[in-house]
Amino acid sequence: MDRRSFLKKAGVVTAGAAATSALATPALSQDRRELKMVTTWPKNFPGLGTGAQRVADRITAMTDGRITVTLYAAGELVGAFESFDAVSTGAADMYHGAEYYWQGKHKGFNFFTAVPLGMTAGELDGWVNHAGGQALWDELAAGFNLKPMMAGNTGVQMGGWFAREINSLEDMRGIKMRMPGLGGEVLRRLGASAVALPGGEIFPALQSGAIDATEWVGPWNDRAFGFQRIVKNYYYPGFHEPGSGLAVGMNLDVFNSLADSDKELVKAACLAENNVMYSEYMANNGAALSALINEDGVTLRKFPDEVWAEFARLSEEVVNEAAEDDIGRRILASYQQARKDMAGWTKIAEQTYAEARGANLDI
Amino acid sequence: MDRRSFLKKAGVVTAGAAATSALATPALSQDRRELKMVTTWPKNFPGLGTGAQRVADRITAMTDGRITVTLYAAGELVGAFESFDAVSTGAADMYHGAEYYWQGKHKGFNFFTAVPLGMTAGELDGWVNHAGGQALWDELAAGFNLKPMMAGNTGVQMGGWFAREINSLEDMRGIKMRMPGLGGEVLRRLGASAVALPGGEIFPALQSGAIDATEWVGPWNDRAFGFQRIVKNYYYPGFHEPGSGLAVGMNLDVFNSLADSDKELVKAACLAENNVMYSEYMANNGAALSALINEDGVTLRKFPDEVWAEFARLSEEVVNEAAEDDIGRRILASYQQARKDMAGWTKIAEQTYAEARGANLDI
Repeated sequence: MDRRSFLKKAGVVTAGAAATSALATPALSQDRRELKMVTTWPKNFPGLGTGAQRVADRITAMTDGRITVTLYAAGELVGAFESFDAVSTGAADMYHGAEYYWQGKHKGFNFFTAVPLGMTAGELDGWVNHAGGQALWDELAAGFNLKPMMAGNTGVQMGGWFAREINSLEDMRGIKMRMPGLGGEVLRRLGASAVALPGGEIFPALQSGAIDATEWVGPWNDRAFGFQRIVKNYYYPGFHEPGSGLAVGMNLDVFNSLADSDKELVKAACLAENNVMYSEYMANNGAALSALINEDGVTLRKFPDEVWAEFARLSEEVVNEAAEDDIGRRILASYQQARKDMAGWTKIAEQTYAEARGANLDI
Repeated sequence: MDRRSFLKKAGVVTAGAAATSALATPALSQDRRELKMVTTWPKNFPGLGTGAQRVADRITAMTDGRITVTLYAAGELVGAFESFDAVSTGAADMYHGAEYYWQGKHKGFNFFTAVPLGMTAGELDGWVNHAGGQALWDELAAGFNLKPMMAGNTGVQMGGWFAREINSLEDMRGIKMRMPGLGGEVLRRLGASAVALPGGEIFPALQSGAIDATEWVGPWNDRAFGFQRIVKNYYYPGFHEPGSGLAVGMNLDVFNSLADSDKELVKAACLAENNVMYSEYMANNGAALSALINEDGVTLRKFPDEVWAEFARLSEEVVNEAAEDDIGRRILASYQQARKDMAGWTKIAEQTYAEARGANLDI
């Protein structure tokens, strides 16, 4: 296959190593590429889906269409949770999703979204960008023929919606709650029952009483789903996802086939979205929270200290068990060290400033 | 002048309106551009200077040198505080700096770096990216022939280094402290004396006793300057810069002369740095703070509540007086509304999560 005919197909097939090195030349970088991005989100779902669309559109716009990225929402090309395999095998070129959806492939992926009692958005970026996280993530993902890049964050997620008040640990036992991943395992050890429903199935389950409680994201996204029409107790702070990173995974052969300048361009588009999405959640959650309280009759409640203490104890237990092999142990050790280094600074900086501002201003 | 000869000079002269529209065509977008970036930072100063360098390098790398951005540190082409005029007039093409350095041009610029008792990094990005901030900033800067873009953030800055302990409001009176901008005005109203020294002059002034106290940035940058060798009382939380945004200002004619795709590329490079720099401060401040305390004998101290209450009262007074004309009043109103919307969310989210994590984990 000559270079030119290979290029025409590079968007849909997995490039071989020999072709890859031949492609990485400036002379060829002006050839047009059509890349398919699958996502784990409903079409234009606020924040997550629109953020994925922004990544696709930004790459297309920055290259004036030389690299055109077409987005396929969950179910349009493959199902949400088939995105990983589709990109790994080259059926699609890239995905936008949450890495913890792939914990069935390797539990190490959890750490690149969020783990219970883990890092906030800024801390996670500190680890990935500057404290060894990206190298470990590259190593983990390369085993699946993927190049991972951080491309969004929801910030701290809310503790969830509960049909009944939670006044003690006893009140948590027996509750049937929607919570995926390691957070769900914490709930199970607490004596609750955790189920992992996709977003679109949560509302009917809560309405029918099939579940007593659910978490989703935060005020902006939760209000859009309408949980406030069914239950009124909205709890904080969430223990399970303190700053969920969203990621682009690109087929590694496709990534390697890009000119160096285009690799930098794709990475910049992802980093840009990492800033844009987090700040979008920041901008929208406050107003949505006010509306939930003042217009929708929702009561904001704080988890009792004894409940949170048990969340914390069990979270450490569950997270420390998430390292199953060598790369898993290195990811865990690096993550825990980075969390320790940064949590002390978060306390002195953002936390104490926010406390002092709130104590002195009527805002 | 034909297009091609104009293009050769476009890096150093201000483009006229007629030439601008002719240039904004895809056919010409492959021509090479050489852009000069001046900065307000010493060469490769950690975080700020290296962040500016990353913006320049990223644009160059993303275009494979088609747009080559050459960085000039403070004093290399023009003095730090001449950067604004140099770019406004077209003597340089872009600057990386802190917008509040230009408050002599218009006090509205303060709001795009930080104001006392103002927004954190995430909140500032929320306002600029999603709640009207960018449009107001564009309007303000266009009056000076500039296109502004957010491109970095230091996070919450420390309260500063003090030769003597601060146990009461009385202890603040008469102190001579280095603090520029609106924060300095707050200190003056508190009965202290505020001076605005450039970074390089702070250490000798503190050593000679010409000043009793200084703030600079945070543990990482402060330790590099060596303040801990002179004074040992390190106070938090700072009231004056709760999340200082750093910005790129590009000559507006140069920006308008770029192809639409290159405009998007430059904006993405700045947004990327906005994520990278903030997370770099996050990653480095924690370890530096530990070293200051455990290796350098520094005592971390919290401002007394009565002192912080007066910081807060006077900050509101000073900030509300910073609106002098129509655009100034619209910036102030938009900023205060956005702060109100987002501060409530910060309290429920990052603040309360950090409190609960710190209370339950030994990290």
